[in-house]
Amino acid sequence: MEKLDAIFSPESVAVIGASSTPGKVGHDIFANVLRGEYKGTLYPVNPKARSILSVRCYASVTDIPDPVDLAMIILPPKAALKSIEDCIEKGVKGVVIVSAGFKEVGGEGAEIEEQIAGKCRAVGIPLIGPNCLGVINPSSNIRLNASFSTRIPHKGNISFISQSGALCTAVLDFAADRGFGFSKFISIGNKADVEELDLLKYYHKDPETDVIMIYMEELRLRENFVEEVKKITSGDRPTPILVIKSGKTAAGAKAAASHTGSLAGTEAVYNAVFHQAGIIRVDTVDDMFDFAQAFSARRMPAGNRVAIITNAGGPGIIATDMTEISGLTLARFSRETDEALHKHLPPTANFSNPVDVIGDASRDRYENALEAVIKDNGVDGVLMILTPQSMTDAIGTAEAIVNIYKRTKKPITCSFMGVVDVSAGVKHLQEHHVPVYRFPENAARAMGTLHESTRWLKRRILPQYELNFDSLKARKIIDDCLASGKSVLGEHDGAPLLECYGFKPCPMKLAQTAAEAGQIADELGYPLVLKIVSEQILHKSDAGGVRVNLKTRKDVEHGFTEILENAFTYAPEAQIDGILVQKMAPAGEEVILGVNRYPGFGHLIMFGFGGIYVELFKNVVFRLAPLGRNTARRMIRGIKGYEMLTGFRGKPVADIEEIERLLVGLSQLVTDNPEIKELDINPLFVHEKGSGATVADIILTLERE
Amino acid sequence: MEKLDAIFSPESVAVIGASSTPGKVGHDIFANVLRGEYKGTLYPVNPKARSILSVRCYASVTDIPDPVDLAMIILPPKAALKSIEDCIEKGVKGVVIVSAGFKEVGGEGAEIEEQIAGKCRAVGIPLIGPNCLGVINPSSNIRLNASFSTRIPHKGNISFISQSGALCTAVLDFAADRGFGFSKFISIGNKADVEELDLLKYYHKDPETDVIMIYMEELRLRENFVEEVKKITSGDRPTPILVIKSGKTAAGAKAAASHTGSLAGTEAVYNAVFHQAGIIRVDTVDDMFDFAQAFSARRMPAGNRVAIITNAGGPGIIATDMTEISGLTLARFSRETDEALHKHLPPTANFSNPVDVIGDASRDRYENALEAVIKDNGVDGVLMILTPQSMTDAIGTAEAIVNIYKRTKKPITCSFMGVVDVSAGVKHLQEHHVPVYRFPENAARAMGTLHESTRWLKRRILPQYELNFDSLKARKIIDDCLASGKSVLGEHDGAPLLECYGFKPCPMKLAQTAAEAGQIADELGYPLVLKIVSEQILHKSDAGGVRVNLKTRKDVEHGFTEILENAFTYAPEAQIDGILVQKMAPAGEEVILGVNRYPGFGHLIMFGFGGIYVELFKNVVFRLAPLGRNTARRMIRGIKGYEMLTGFRGKPVADIEEIERLLVGLSQLVTDNPEIKELDINPLFVHEKGSGATVADIILTLERE
Repeated sequence: MEKLDAIFSPESVAVIGASSTPGKVGHDIFANVLRGEYKGTLYPVNPKARSILSVRCYASVTDIPDPVDLAMIILPPKAALKSIEDCIEKGVKGVVIVSAGFKEVGGEGAEIEEQIAGKCRAVGIPLIGPNCLGVINPSSNIRLNASFSTRIPHKGNISFISQSGALCTAVLDFAADRGFGFSKFISIGNKADVEELDLLKYYHKDPETDVIMIYMEELRLRENFVEEVKKITSGDRPTPILVIKSGKTAAGAKAAASHTGSLAGTEAVYNAVFHQAGIIRVDTVDDMFDFAQAFSARRMPAGNRVAIITNAGGPGIIATDMTEISGLTLARFSRETDEALHKHLPPTANFSNPVDVIGDASRDRYENALEAVIKDNGVDGVLMILTPQSMTDAIGTAEAIVNIYKRTKKPITCSFMGVVDVSAGVKHLQEHHVPVYRFPENAARAMGTLHESTRWLKRRILPQYELNFDSLKARKIIDDCLASGKSVLGEHDGAPLLECYGFKPCPMKLAQTAAEAGQIADELGYPLVLKIVSEQILHKSDAGGVRVNLKTRKDVEHGFTEILENAFTYAPEAQIDGILVQKMAPAGEEVILGVNRYPGFGHLIMFGFGGIYVELFKNVVFRLAPLGRNTARRMIRGIKGYEMLTGFRGKPVADIEEIERLLVGLSQLVTDNPEIKELDINPLFVHEKGSGATVADIILTLERE
Repeated sequence: MEKLDAIFSPESVAVIGASSTPGKVGHDIFANVLRGEYKGTLYPVNPKARSILSVRCYASVTDIPDPVDLAMIILPPKAALKSIEDCIEKGVKGVVIVSAGFKEVGGEGAEIEEQIAGKCRAVGIPLIGPNCLGVINPSSNIRLNASFSTRIPHKGNISFISQSGALCTAVLDFAADRGFGFSKFISIGNKADVEELDLLKYYHKDPETDVIMIYMEELRLRENFVEEVKKITSGDRPTPILVIKSGKTAAGAKAAASHTGSLAGTEAVYNAVFHQAGIIRVDTVDDMFDFAQAFSARRMPAGNRVAIITNAGGPGIIATDMTEISGLTLARFSRETDEALHKHLPPTANFSNPVDVIGDASRDRYENALEAVIKDNGVDGVLMILTPQSMTDAIGTAEAIVNIYKRTKKPITCSFMGVVDVSAGVKHLQEHHVPVYRFPENAARAMGTLHESTRWLKRRILPQYELNFDSLKARKIIDDCLASGKSVLGEHDGAPLLECYGFKPCPMKLAQTAAEAGQIADELGYPLVLKIVSEQILHKSDAGGVRVNLKTRKDVEHGFTEILENAFTYAPEAQIDGILVQKMAPAGEEVILGVNRYPGFGHLIMFGFGGIYVELFKNVVFRLAPLGRNTARRMIRGIKGYEMLTGFRGKPVADIEEIERLLVGLSQLVTDNPEIKELDINPLFVHEKGSGATVADIILTLERE
């Protein structure tokens, strides 16, 4: 028995704050449970009424003579608090607070919410809300509609979690319109106690749920969220999770010192979380339903090779386009398939993919064509397109598809175009859980999403690198910096820190005079770089504080003097720690690694190409720490222009494994030292395969959380 | 009287090939005209029948005793040809051939199609089809449904052109489902005579058409297409044109010698045509209807500042996101607006944009809030979002919106979420032509498309550059090359050619021996580049055929010998014309200009950033020649990373006007010399503003068309 059973499948429900006045929430919720033909027992609670909608009313939940599983509370904050105490006394097993006026208004409301959540948690009663729309379970042996919605949806295998109550009604209406059913439906409001992860785990275990949809406004990330959700999306019985996350363009982190900081906003965080957890993000409610329908059939394509069967050229082209845009390819048919198609189709048909059975096709040609291609080992899934024409037999074709569908394990998605003429066929397909869409592009995109999910499920998992880090030394460097009040670190302090986690900075030494610089230069060897070191000068180049490719002692000494002069002009007040004399990094591909701490989520690790790529094109990938080899690997492979590392146009193949190791090291560095707020390693020169990588510049800021 | 009136508004229609057998095309079309309550006179023509559906039948169109405006022909090719002769004899004013079996099957069918088109053209009778679905005009004084569709759509202000017959039925069904009406509806099939441009011009003049939708499979570009369509989309009475073009991922041009050639595919051509003509391309039928609805209200936002009014937070956030993604911004309210909002809304409301009138809002708050923001001079358009909650008054709110809508000129788009609860309100909005959508993201995107169109209408048009080209000299260079059998030109021939059209190549001279190279080097001055010249070696770098940054005569002579050795190893058979000694280009931003001839469309001009940007990121823009200053200007501004030319991070501002002039020159070069098949100027170094640009490398191929 799961705790949340009390919420979704209670044997008895008390509506506390039930009312006789239509239009009041306390009336509507009570009426909806009652009229929804709830299979359990329903008790109204209201000290001022004798009965509500003819049902005997109780003054308090404690007066109810029988056990109560679920309490729906529709009361203002103070009264809700009191009633929670009653519920605990009564031994209620689950609570939903529908009313608003709590944390979302702040002040006393927020305080009371915290008290209520605390009381529930202390006795282990799950609490939904406050400020939510309620809960629906259309299962025939429950039929619980404890919500604002007057209609209870059909039974289906999709479960829904919504943070917004307002969206729920629209989603229910939309689902009714498209013939969708739900398994469980809940609005979670302020999430004072039960939140997404609890429900995801519950839905995952629920045998009646095959797909999960979430509408999310903000996520409070628990530490193990990513790992726990990964188990749901890719375990033994993976459950696909589709999410709409609103607040996309919300302003990102502002006024950051590093590139990483300026690029890491809300969007980067959420996309990283979703990617790592295997959650599929969608943009619109339409897409969510399109994809949910495909997943709810519980069939995944083994690969990306799709056959298209159509009775009209235009829609076939549209489907082909969207197929390729969605990461699928058109299957090439075997000789057997080709022969079978020639045997069953008229000579004017198109026998190669997309197969065109021609406008005057009736049921037979569709059936024979599908029969032929579905058997082909080179076909992973089929798209069936039907346009109503004079000889078209929509219902017959639908029956044929369903018959074949039952005998195969391959996914089929259909587009029966038109609303009226094809409705009988569409209904037949829906009844037999064959995904069907109005337009071919939707059917193709849905198949593409299934395939993406297959790739996630079949992703390669390599053993972790065995890496040794000197975390004690790193800790000491950071403690020393913090103790001396340093908050912005350059290479001088940053390089030894990074060395503890496997990075290789260029050899360097700080010089205080031109003569000393010259001497260091001779020791290190040429060519060399000079860089000013000052906490007040972050953008060294802008200040004329950098000289590169110096080849003689004379150049070094001269450069030293110039830099000092420039710095004085640029920032007369700056305190100069000295000038760093640094061996020039050997040539390599210029990449950037970075870190940004995001409140509530921890450290985001960034990877991208350096220079103009990061500055102008913002072509970077983020993942949340901690990350291991496999995440690092997918990060690097996910960057646009990845080919630059794999031997593009005669470039040497770069040491990609070294970047992987360094990303893992970076992740460990910031996990061990949460004081690191921002960090840019820019550029990191990645050398030829097997030759490692060299850190050429570092900027790092520390801040206690 | 327009010629096409005979097609859309005939006073009499003859159905030639009419039939009594249900299911036959000749029956269905005749029955649909008859039962659609056509206001004119209808004559069946069939030599074997006395009457069809009780209507007296004629053996030939010439037997009809009255004048015939439109002949619908449903006959196989040979019979159709005969009947066309009858039609001409009869003086029919317009012809639609519905039947298939013509050009699309090739052979005799194609020949007959050509004959038919020729005969019609000779006497000036417009011909639609063959191989099409027919024509529909729902106007109450016509009511012509000469199509396969049993239903005639509502009257509306959107006209539709479809190349695919199959899609038509689905579009009609979909429109009926969403409550859309049409002004004119036609399927054009093989386009033997009348094609898109004829219909676009006709629709543009039609006072009953405000928006045009096209479903296009392929376009045969007439020379003046872009200019003519531009007059439609941006003249005195601009008519927006929305297009779905299928065949997006069709394989592009293959095996091209130039970057431009390899990047210029079907997609590039069509996008260039649409861009230049002001046609709005959409991806899905859903989007087409969403946007058509917004345009059909005939209101454009003056700017991009949008106010959002909502009764729920979540949908408000979604709308905000999509608003910003769609190129709009949230309006900042004036003090007056702010005061008005505070006066009329409860204290818990959100007064800044998006305005949240809170879940318990009835009609009044919506009305007052809209009244306040619509008056604000800082607001260019309003998004109204309504979610059904207990106090929501969907119909009242819709009435209030309509009242205010009638008093303003600003566009308003609405999202009344949910299907059932809000349907009365939605209907009221639709009846008064206020665009309304199911989800807020659709309403926001539609507003964004309106704004994009405003930007097109208000685009800046600068006077053309006055440029002088030496077209005679250029012609001679090309003729000489063609005469000597040269098809691939490098810098040696290409540079003087480009000079005729305003380009400035680096000074250069061809050397045959190391000593000669040294002598030329001293003449030209240092630093220098050496490049091999051979028609067999196109990729000079790959062959070790390039040496750069040579600073002494010794280096040049040594480089000459090395290159010859490398070339011999790389391609022993290659005929070496010599080695080019070329002054190194002064520094500048590296861009690429290119040309590719696309069959049937002419020359595509390409602009992009050079090097890895074009090679790996394919970040380029195409436009069709001929192009002038304004198109060139928008091309350059349209490139991703345009900021690299405008002084990004301390780079000098580049000579953008010189790139504009060179694009115009390049366009003129290829217009004057259609033998140019492909051309890459890569890189062109663009210097600081006012300092021009230098061509550093050229490859050019010639081929007579």
